[in-house]
Amino acid sequence: MSGRVEARLAELGIALPRPVAPVANYVAFVQAGGMVVLSGQLPMQDGAVAVRGRLGEDVSAEDGTRAAKLCLVNLLAQLREACGGDLDRVVRVVRLGGFIAATPGFTAHAGVMNGASDLAVAVFGDAGRHARSTVGVASLPLGAAVEVEGMFEIGAG
Amino acid sequence: MSGRVEARLAELGIALPRPVAPVANYVAFVQAGGMVVLSGQLPMQDGAVAVRGRLGEDVSAEDGTRAAKLCLVNLLAQLREACGGDLDRVVRVVRLGGFIAATPGFTAHAGVMNGASDLAVAVFGDAGRHARSTVGVASLPLGAAVEVEGMFEIGAG
Amino acid sequence: MSGRVEARLAELGIALPRPVAPVANYVAFVQAGGMVVLSGQLPMQDGAVAVRGRLGEDVSAEDGTRAAKLCLVNLLAQLREACGGDLDRVVRVVRLGGFIAATPGFTAHAGVMNGASDLAVAVFGDAGRHARSTVGVASLPLGAAVEVEGMFEIGAG
Repeated sequence: MSGRVEARLAELGIALPRPVAPVANYVAFVQAGGMVVLSGQLPMQDGAVAVRGRLGEDVSAEDGTRAAKLCLVNLLAQLREACGGDLDRVVRVVRLGGFIAATPGFTAHAGVMNGASDLAVAVFGDAGRHARSTVGVASLPLGAAVEVEGMFEIGAG
Repeated sequence: MSGRVEARLAELGIALPRPVAPVANYVAFVQAGGMVVLSGQLPMQDGAVAVRGRLGEDVSAEDGTRAAKLCLVNLLAQLREACGGDLDRVVRVVRLGGFIAATPGFTAHAGVMNGASDLAVAVFGDAGRHARSTVGVASLPLGAAVEVEGMFEIGAG
Repeated sequence: MSGRVEARLAELGIALPRPVAPVANYVAFVQAGGMVVLSGQLPMQDGAVAVRGRLGEDVSAEDGTRAAKLCLVNLLAQLREACGGDLDRVVRVVRLGGFIAATPGFTAHAGVMNGASDLAVAVFGDAGRHARSTVGVASLPLGAAVEVEGMFEIGAG
């Protein structure tokens, strides 16, 4: 808990949750060729999906943005595991993929996804600036409003 | 047909189909930097989409799971091509991306995608444990119920 | 404007737009490990989304295909930046991901996505033949009909 990134998380008032291993035949992350590929994360908080529903229907833009931020918090918790506990090893946030549960008429996906993107830059600075794709999907596991997946470059421990 | 993975496929009673090249300006796989990136595969069987429709509407969870498994069978068929016929060269299943055609109210995407994830681990053991993202989409090519894409790490032949 | 690929673009009558930086905490591309990962691009033309709506509803297959082609034009404009202006450095189009805003009943996603795939091969020849995934989503940012993301392998400058 003593690194540069950990200090920044503390400044931002963000406590990373204990990462939860998926209850299935997949894992939260795979490391290959200097990259860490992370499984899509839902807006889990205290063991439950904190924001359910669809943008454009029963989820406000504000709650959607909060959900995207929560997804990134959960990605960071898994990423810390992948880094053996040392988030200072993160060289670059390479890509975030944002899936927003949304109605056909919804158009403000980008603002929702900024909840994740803004936190990435707040935590990692320029190294947090990433490529991203944001799309509106029909539904997500457990009724979640947002799911975010990520690819990160990490250096030697 | 004599490798370790081929033997395991036979034990599981799975015969990989002859991989079919896409009838368009794309290919089934690209190898780059030690990785094989595979195109999204549909639940094709004997040249036709075996499971059509949407989860939460006209496709049962059981049929959806079968569709996801079929998608993985088709990924493995293409992967074998990418490995020059030798699936023992597969070092790791890095990532599976699951797209489930689903209604807005559907929430059980994870169970459907387990059809693919479980087979990956049954075939490759620990090397089959992958990162994954699972989302519910509005519709898929040819009315398929599931599409799965994959990224694999392979070693020298 | 003197390279092989630039000449091919000119033959095809395609003028790449000035790439526009995203107005948010993400970037158009990240380079990592010999790969360029590009953010999802919309069918922008002259600073606006040129094709809005959903396939199967208010967007024809022809307009959808044009939208996919426009997405690729915008990817190429960003890719040229990533290559320091020299598209001849592109070794391979590794993967295109196509998101088609579509109704639940739409089935012709592949034909729409060919608008992007065909242009990739027209521009880069065999190096343009890529892995791809094509799915139908509920909605896209700004009401766009299509979004395409890409991963490219590039060589030394």
